[in-house]
Amino acid sequence: MIFTSTHIALAVVAGSFPVSAVSLWPVPASLTTGSTILRLAPDFTIALSVSNAPRDLVDAVIRTESHIWNDKHRLMVVDRGASHSAAIAKAPLLPQLNVQLVVRQPVLSIAEETSKEMEKRSEEYTLTVPADGRAALLVANSTLGLLRGLTTFEQLWYTLGPDIYTPSAPVTIHDKPAFPYRGFMLDTARNFYSVEDLKRTFDAMSMVKMSAFHWHVADSQSFPVEVEGYPEIAQKGAYDQELIYTVTDIKDLTAYAAERGIDIIMEIDTPGHSGAIGKAYPEHVACPESRPWGGYAAEPPSGQLRIASPDTVDFTSKMFTALASKMPGKYFSTGGDEVNINCYNQDEATQQQLKATNKTLDEALNTFVQATHTALARQGKIPVVWEEMALSYKVNLFYQTIVMIWISSQSAASVLEKGHRIVQAPSDYLYLDCGAGMWLGTSIGGSWCDPFKSWQRVYDYKPLAGIPEKHKSKVLGGQTCLWSEQSDPANLDSIVWPRTAALAEVLWSPENLLHNSSSALARLHDIRYRMVQRGIRAIALQPHWCAVRPGLCDAGA
Amino acid sequence: MIFTSTHIALAVVAGSFPVSAVSLWPVPASLTTGSTILRLAPDFTIALSVSNAPRDLVDAVIRTESHIWNDKHRLMVVDRGASHSAAIAKAPLLPQLNVQLVVRQPVLSIAEETSKEMEKRSEEYTLTVPADGRAALLVANSTLGLLRGLTTFEQLWYTLGPDIYTPSAPVTIHDKPAFPYRGFMLDTARNFYSVEDLKRTFDAMSMVKMSAFHWHVADSQSFPVEVEGYPEIAQKGAYDQELIYTVTDIKDLTAYAAERGIDIIMEIDTPGHSGAIGKAYPEHVACPESRPWGGYAAEPPSGQLRIASPDTVDFTSKMFTALASKMPGKYFSTGGDEVNINCYNQDEATQQQLKATNKTLDEALNTFVQATHTALARQGKIPVVWEEMALSYKVNLFYQTIVMIWISSQSAASVLEKGHRIVQAPSDYLYLDCGAGMWLGTSIGGSWCDPFKSWQRVYDYKPLAGIPEKHKSKVLGGQTCLWSEQSDPANLDSIVWPRTAALAEVLWSPENLLHNSSSALARLHDIRYRMVQRGIRAIALQPHWCAVRPGLCDAGA
Repeated sequence: MIFTSTHIALAVVAGSFPVSAVSLWPVPASLTTGSTILRLAPDFTIALSVSNAPRDLVDAVIRTESHIWNDKHRLMVVDRGASHSAAIAKAPLLPQLNVQLVVRQPVLSIAEETSKEMEKRSEEYTLTVPADGRAALLVANSTLGLLRGLTTFEQLWYTLGPDIYTPSAPVTIHDKPAFPYRGFMLDTARNFYSVEDLKRTFDAMSMVKMSAFHWHVADSQSFPVEVEGYPEIAQKGAYDQELIYTVTDIKDLTAYAAERGIDIIMEIDTPGHSGAIGKAYPEHVACPESRPWGGYAAEPPSGQLRIASPDTVDFTSKMFTALASKMPGKYFSTGGDEVNINCYNQDEATQQQLKATNKTLDEALNTFVQATHTALARQGKIPVVWEEMALSYKVNLFYQTIVMIWISSQSAASVLEKGHRIVQAPSDYLYLDCGAGMWLGTSIGGSWCDPFKSWQRVYDYKPLAGIPEKHKSKVLGGQTCLWSEQSDPANLDSIVWPRTAALAEVLWSPENLLHNSSSALARLHDIRYRMVQRGIRAIALQPHWCAVRPGLCDAGA
Repeated sequence: MIFTSTHIALAVVAGSFPVSAVSLWPVPASLTTGSTILRLAPDFTIALSVSNAPRDLVDAVIRTESHIWNDKHRLMVVDRGASHSAAIAKAPLLPQLNVQLVVRQPVLSIAEETSKEMEKRSEEYTLTVPADGRAALLVANSTLGLLRGLTTFEQLWYTLGPDIYTPSAPVTIHDKPAFPYRGFMLDTARNFYSVEDLKRTFDAMSMVKMSAFHWHVADSQSFPVEVEGYPEIAQKGAYDQELIYTVTDIKDLTAYAAERGIDIIMEIDTPGHSGAIGKAYPEHVACPESRPWGGYAAEPPSGQLRIASPDTVDFTSKMFTALASKMPGKYFSTGGDEVNINCYNQDEATQQQLKATNKTLDEALNTFVQATHTALARQGKIPVVWEEMALSYKVNLFYQTIVMIWISSQSAASVLEKGHRIVQAPSDYLYLDCGAGMWLGTSIGGSWCDPFKSWQRVYDYKPLAGIPEKHKSKVLGGQTCLWSEQSDPANLDSIVWPRTAALAEVLWSPENLLHNSSSALARLHDIRYRMVQRGIRAIALQPHWCAVRPGLCDAGA
């Protein structure tokens, strides 16, 4: 440990940011800033004092240097910093950032740190930027902590003409996250996203120090991921042969994400939401594309794995094994939401298999889940499930299983009572797809989870609200979710950003620095404009007039 | 006239489109299709039989040829047309499209036709595509009609491998629009859009035969348009020197739009929403950036032209004259919404000017509007105003003035009673910005015009509902509106498309072919996928699974 919580001086109180202050998002646990202008020396360098520095740390340093020089982000004030021109010209120069690791052998790469169990990761760091021309210093006790510190360092800088400067030196930061799981879930099954779209999303997530990408990769509509040994699943289950994440793509994506501090948790939703598997393996799927769909599934098309079939249990376990073996992280989600009982009641094969094995449907589901989770455990993976698996069925989950809360922010306490750790993804706060109207044909109504979750709504979310003290440590964090019935690459960035950044701060920063949306807004504008500079199409939250005049567009201002 | 309304055979009844039928958007007034596959000959050409063909007609033909060969849009069925492969290989070949103008001298260019008064434009055309290898024929009595026909012709074609084909030959179309004004309004003042963004928007509008771009170019937040003779207005009123539409840009944009059948109606909103003018001309602006803003304007910042000042009236008239002289079309909007009385009551200069001229505020406003509209009339322009100018104040508008309805779909009848023509832009159906949460800081509420207007809501709009028979001919059409408090180039395409296409059909197609959103949805998917192929980021309306299975994702299917 570099510092303990007692050393965290809460030097900045929400609402006290002067207009020209540094705008960090998420706001660090402890931050002190000055009001001296400091310019980056033309020959500024980042010096990595880490012996045998892992390649991904070196790359992170190179990216930071590139971002600082190329972002061309100007101060978010009316004149965009022009009035600082003379002061910048004669400002002290920052010659160097020294990057040091508190000695700990062996040095793991960022990707290796990111792939640990989340409670075992260290993301904390200390960053000091003197105002007098001495070198800045970034120290952490892991390469992952250094990545987080580099990300913060990037946000200190603004452009004016040829100069790069900060108006807020000296800066002293001690920082670490409030929650380890700071996530975003994307559904790539209702509509497909390219590898490039996902990488751009990881870039944005990394800018706000997010740690988890929950990849709802397949569903009943399509199965766009190659399973080694079972190529037909994607060949027949994907929308198109060109719309498949190959094994090579998965390797590429998991590496790209992990090097940026993002752990990918793949989800193969089972036993519901799995109809697309039936295109290649009809023997494993009950009620495929049955009609009317409303009797068999939450949305069209229907299709569920035949949980009572030993062959299907075996097939599913092997499929999980094949996919999990490609994932560097510790977690793998088996889904488990919205299992439709009528689908099984109407499926002759399932009814015969239940009789043959002398099991109830609940018992068959329990066998299915335990067998498939055991397969994951053999791969060293911790299972992740949606809340129904803990609350709606008589399934004995392994106690290590992580449960995702989605139905509402009220569900968490019941799951925690059962002893599981949870990730908060309540639809009433964190579902990004709500509020765009019903997508079913012939319907003119609203979406099921109206209204739209504005950034203010997301930012107002309190992950520990209503959680008994004894269970708070089991709340690993939370995630926004984008279900893709009405999304694809055309609106990916604009529907996700900057709303997801609002959650990133809720999950990183100490609670007493949060929930003042007026002071937060100025900083959120700043990171949003930075995202746009990097090619991420995050939406405007206000007229530009307001963005450069913090507070003047508040109600009543 | 090529044909009269009695000749329009309504051969296609909404809901009767087979899966593989041609998907035209907007659906033509009269359409018959067959089920023969017809392939484009490898040496297919469009032969323009128009002597002295205007350059923009030649360009339109070249664009159509390019679109047909390069769109690479596949049939919207599960196999994307693959099962047609053998039939396509041996299909008859279409050698040529002959394009003919019913002789009328002189031949005007598309841009010239588009710049006429809208009631004087002819957009009708006849298109026949035989199934037996004879040439297709497009006939119209104006170059603008030919443009509309070429646009329809483009939508007949699908790609499979190297082949371009239609599954629905022979095709016979007689077509003309129900309303002449089929518009989209964009606010480029709250946030700025590049010339490239606008051109891409015109491309999309032209794909669905829209005829009007209402350009809310300036507002109190910024004034991003160069006024010849008054360069300081934009130099000081724009957000940035790089964020200005120059005189050259205006020439470029109006030409680009007009060549695509789109008339640009520029709006300089007065006397409210004009605070940005005060950056260069403080003497002409009352209550600039007064606080609390809620007392002086509908949103921050406040600022209104000093209507009681003869100097300001003169200045405004000259500004309108300078801008109107650059616009090729017949229309120019002076805005007129949300005039704040308290702003004038609190403005000492206005109070003195009222006394000096011995006028009430209403009388001063009347003088201001009449003088500025007279200046426009001298430029040959017809004034356009928001509904308050007809309903809320004692202003004597010229009878030719066109009034835009926005406050609700209930306002239209009252305005028509006053004798004006109207454009329908009711916020309860056609405001694209609604439903994304309140944008003011410190507010967690919804937008003022909640809920989100889904494509179904837009498509359900009936421009003539509640309009007395005697006034129906004065309803020129309608427009969707994007106010840009929460929009900029990052989400322009995704917030506008394909919702605005839904209105384009409402305003083009005969009412008896509309308002069946299930059959419309299949065609809307088709045009949306075509837009994506052309680089317009229109959003997905459903999972791709649904898009290629028309009807299967209807409620109850």
